[in-house]
Amino acid sequence: MEDRVQMSLLLDLYGILLTDKQRDIMTLYFNEDLSLAEISELNSTSRQAIHDVIKRCHKILLTYDNKLMLLEKAMNLSKQKENALNNLFLLEKSIKDENELKLINNIKDNILKI
Amino acid sequence: MEDRVQMSLLLDLYGILLTDKQRDIMTLYFNEDLSLAEISELNSTSRQAIHDVIKRCHKILLTYDNKLMLLEKAMNLSKQKENALNNLFLLEKSIKDENELKLINNIKDNILKI
Repeated sequence: MEDRVQMSLLLDLYGILLTDKQRDIMTLYFNEDLSLAEISELNSTSRQAIHDVIKRCHKILLTYDNKLMLLEKAMNLSKQKENALNNLFLLEKSIKDENELKLINNIKDNILKI
Repeated sequence: MEDRVQMSLLLDLYGILLTDKQRDIMTLYFNEDLSLAEISELNSTSRQAIHDVIKRCHKILLTYDNKLMLLEKAMNLSKQKENALNNLFLLEKSIKDENELKLINNIKDNILKI
């Protein structure tokens, strides 16, 4: 996965564990695509200071994910949900009975709530 | 949820974020139901020291869960999986067509892999 995309996903998963200040800087850099110069200006600090925060937070997020592996779990969950919904779609096309179709809709709801 | 059960579940979810020593003590206390006296003897330390570790780790695990809320997410996932599997079971009982039954089995596999 591209490093920038991966960081954005890790920020969604573990950003809450950073300080508000760290999370703001990481969000501006990885989600809103601001440059180091722009972020340093917004924070009235040096480009180097922002660079250091990003480097440190990058490491913190990777360390959390190496331990909790939430990204891998989220991607697996998303894949299995998609597979289940695709199979449900095929089943729905083949079925006519109203009660069976109602059950299929319930299963779809259950899966979408996961 | 009973505090002891909740701690055991939080330990499964976040135990990896503790040090090995902290995790060992928490596992002995919450999963293997050893007393403070027994754990302190195993660790050649005082009952008070073990009590302090457990109290500190208890707080660490709750802090992580207040932020990441993995316990609530895991319980919701488990409930929706169970609902989906129950509905699939009802559907399976009502269906005769071999291809449709095959699709149901695939969906069951997808859900069990979540």
